[in-house]
Amino acid sequence: MNTIEKVAPSGTETGEIIQNSQDYTLFSWSKQKGTNPIAVEHAEGVYLYDYEGKRYIDFSSGLMNVNIGHGDQRVTDAVMRQMQQVSYVTPSCVTKPRGELGKKLAEICPGDLNKAFFTLGGADSIENAIKLARLYTGRHKILTRYQSYHGSTNAAMTASGDPRKIPVDSQQATNFVHFDLPYLYRWEYGEENLLKESVAQLERIIAYEGPNNIAAILLEGESGSSGCLQYPKGYLQKVKQLCNKNGILLIIDEVMSGFGRTGKWFGFQNHDIVPDMIAMAKGITCGYLPFGCLMVSDKIASKFDDTYLPIGLTYSAHPVCCAAAFEVLKIYEDDNLIENAAIMGRYIDQKIDELKTKHPSIGDWRNTGLLGCLELVKNRKTKEPMAPFNAKPDDMVVMNKVAAKIRELGMYTFVRWNYIFIAPPLCINEKQIDEGLAIISEAISIADGEVILNYE
Amino acid sequence: MNTIEKVAPSGTETGEIIQNSQDYTLFSWSKQKGTNPIAVEHAEGVYLYDYEGKRYIDFSSGLMNVNIGHGDQRVTDAVMRQMQQVSYVTPSCVTKPRGELGKKLAEICPGDLNKAFFTLGGADSIENAIKLARLYTGRHKILTRYQSYHGSTNAAMTASGDPRKIPVDSQQATNFVHFDLPYLYRWEYGEENLLKESVAQLERIIAYEGPNNIAAILLEGESGSSGCLQYPKGYLQKVKQLCNKNGILLIIDEVMSGFGRTGKWFGFQNHDIVPDMIAMAKGITCGYLPFGCLMVSDKIASKFDDTYLPIGLTYSAHPVCCAAAFEVLKIYEDDNLIENAAIMGRYIDQKIDELKTKHPSIGDWRNTGLLGCLELVKNRKTKEPMAPFNAKPDDMVVMNKVAAKIRELGMYTFVRWNYIFIAPPLCINEKQIDEGLAIISEAISIADGEVILNYE
Ligand SMILES: Cc1ncc(COP(=O)(O)O)c(C=O)c1O
Ligand SMILES: Cc1ncc(COP(=O)(O)O)c(C=O)c1O
Repeated sequence: MNTIEKVAPSGTETGEIIQNSQDYTLFSWSKQKGTNPIAVEHAEGVYLYDYEGKRYIDFSSGLMNVNIGHGDQRVTDAVMRQMQQVSYVTPSCVTKPRGELGKKLAEICPGDLNKAFFTLGGADSIENAIKLARLYTGRHKILTRYQSYHGSTNAAMTASGDPRKIPVDSQQATNFVHFDLPYLYRWEYGEENLLKESVAQLERIIAYEGPNNIAAILLEGESGSSGCLQYPKGYLQKVKQLCNKNGILLIIDEVMSGFGRTGKWFGFQNHDIVPDMIAMAKGITCGYLPFGCLMVSDKIASKFDDTYLPIGLTYSAHPVCCAAAFEVLKIYEDDNLIENAAIMGRYIDQKIDELKTKHPSIGDWRNTGLLGCLELVKNRKTKEPMAPFNAKPDDMVVMNKVAAKIRELGMYTFVRWNYIFIAPPLCINEKQIDEGLAIISEAISIADGEVILNYE
Repeated sequence: MNTIEKVAPSGTETGEIIQNSQDYTLFSWSKQKGTNPIAVEHAEGVYLYDYEGKRYIDFSSGLMNVNIGHGDQRVTDAVMRQMQQVSYVTPSCVTKPRGELGKKLAEICPGDLNKAFFTLGGADSIENAIKLARLYTGRHKILTRYQSYHGSTNAAMTASGDPRKIPVDSQQATNFVHFDLPYLYRWEYGEENLLKESVAQLERIIAYEGPNNIAAILLEGESGSSGCLQYPKGYLQKVKQLCNKNGILLIIDEVMSGFGRTGKWFGFQNHDIVPDMIAMAKGITCGYLPFGCLMVSDKIASKFDDTYLPIGLTYSAHPVCCAAAFEVLKIYEDDNLIENAAIMGRYIDQKIDELKTKHPSIGDWRNTGLLGCLELVKNRKTKEPMAPFNAKPDDMVVMNKVAAKIRELGMYTFVRWNYIFIAPPLCINEKQIDEGLAIISEAISIADGEVILNYE
């Protein structure tokens, strides 16, 4: 056994839990040496607690998925009820929660998006969307955005425009084309021209690649882990028009932006469009159990009425996951969480406006509902980022200090390059937001120091 | 909404459950019209029950995954306990069950297979195995067997040598090479020559493709849904030798053959080899919750001590799934299920020998532990299959009658082309086996009729 150096005090329960995980399990997206995980003992609402009793406010809802908050007994009860009936049937059998959930999702989704294919996570939903788009259109190319993330299986990772794909670049799937969509903060010619130029560029790329070769355009409903890089107003409508004109399907990835995260059921509903397929995961079960769904239009589904549908996985339409999702959807409604996300989002916007006057390191704040990202800079004029895109460890000295401070002060959130994500559970209240922003304010004072140095 | 014609009586609870699933959800690997699912109300041990109270003996353990049997309260309790603590943490945090499960798997796995990467299912485990093999070796090609199944995401489906890939052929990932490994029943020159020729052919293919281009050979631990096409004795050892000689990794897919299914923890343990990675799913949680795992050797893991490991998914190391798996592993041991699988497997072998004398349609029976497949033929001499490989609906007339009879008589199992799978939960007893085989015996009498016609 290849033992990793210890980080937690040995002899303690925390020590043993961390040690076991380090000795016997692999950690994603990192080197195995030097991981320093929190050992979570329990969780409730917007808080995580470790084995030493330390409390962390969860300002990223896990990976932007625990939208209803942690430890909700109603989900546990629903899981329990279903497990008392039947935990597993093959996807060729049916169960009550499968049909109920499908029906409920059809109600929630606009237009004729009425048929659900149930998967296990975001990547799976995307893989199946890509497969169906190609089968439906008989075309092969998929167009996606640089600075997007769609998952880590082969096709989903290739579709992604995220630097996480760079280490596996030689393993790329074929027939994916990425296009660039700059974001307002780093674009010098105003939002209208950003819209105009982005659409014009996309039109050119469609022409270069051959419209009849393009099966689908795949876009996040709102940009997520790339830094909440918002679409210029009207952009998604123009994209939909281009799709219609050229017989291209529009797949919207709502894995992160779906289920109330942006103050609407789905991110695309902020942009007045209806796509042909919606990829879902995360908020559909809020992480209580793994789950995902690909929602397709009747138009696409009916193609497979008399044609073999060549997709499937052992755990598709898992009864317990379906039951969990059905309960979670009910909680969104019963607790008015989507409305609360919109209201709390506006509250955070105000508060960040105040923080901006105090912290010169805040370059930009981009937020929709509760999907927000602070971008830290060394200098507001030059906009030089506090850490560059795809920063190497050496570039992360200041941001790592900020991240360590955030954790020390009792917050869990997602810090990436010069970004700090603020995407708490949708059940958060003003007091908890104040508590969290106070931590962020204190932590980014470290970055402010860097700005001052820079002005000298 | 695009309504599919009704199959269940409307107005009944069953009718509504089936209707909802048909109207609002997609069915895998089939046309959407004409599905005729069982609506499962509850399940216990080796039995499923529908809403009309009809009982089905589950002779395929779901999709060969419910190894411990249905409705085991111990798993439900373990799930409950973990959900009361914490249901979800991000994969950069740790929980007690994550480390415990990793440690337990390291104990179960032979050699230096000590590090677990937790996934959501079989395809995910395979995707990550392929990624790591390429990263570890710096080589690009993956060699796999025709007549194998590894999952439906892009890389996993391309790796598969199963006709389910044919409809998505144009979407294949690159750098996969398939080799043929005939099986004894349809090979005319004896097992020794099958071994010799298969190894020689694999050696030639390695040479043609360039040994230094090959990252890994990927094989099922025992062949599963392709029809339990057993390896010639000594084959896997020869493959491992070829791997060692050429610096190629050996990935064994134990998704179906793992966790006692073959009378050992892993299928490859029937062949006295130790691979470099093991892909797991199915039996690891027996379907109670979705889960998978890729187990890697210390040699491979240590490469990522100081190198970024570019793999990950939102639900990796899901605490509730880890807790379920940990409990399931305990049940295998507490209930002596693996020993029972071996014993019951031998019992079935005997009984099938008796059936053979009675049913001229039985061409071949291939079984390891409780992973067995009956192959039906129109004629024992010519071995003409009752339905051909990748049979079209028109070719399935007789087999569909057999399948319908099996269901009518109260059995759920997997019928594919001319294959009937016999892979019940490992907790089955002799009486239940007798009950199931009586159903199969009655059903295949229909096929016997075809044999008689054929002799005339
Ligand atoms: C927009 C988006 N799509 C897809 C995924 C992949 O989801 P998963 O990790 O469940 O495969 C993510 C994960 O963060 C995501 O943010
Ligand atoms: C040997 C083998 N590998 C992989 C898989 C894929 O597993 P999953 O359906 O969980 O993706 C299967 C599924 O039947 C399998 O039998």
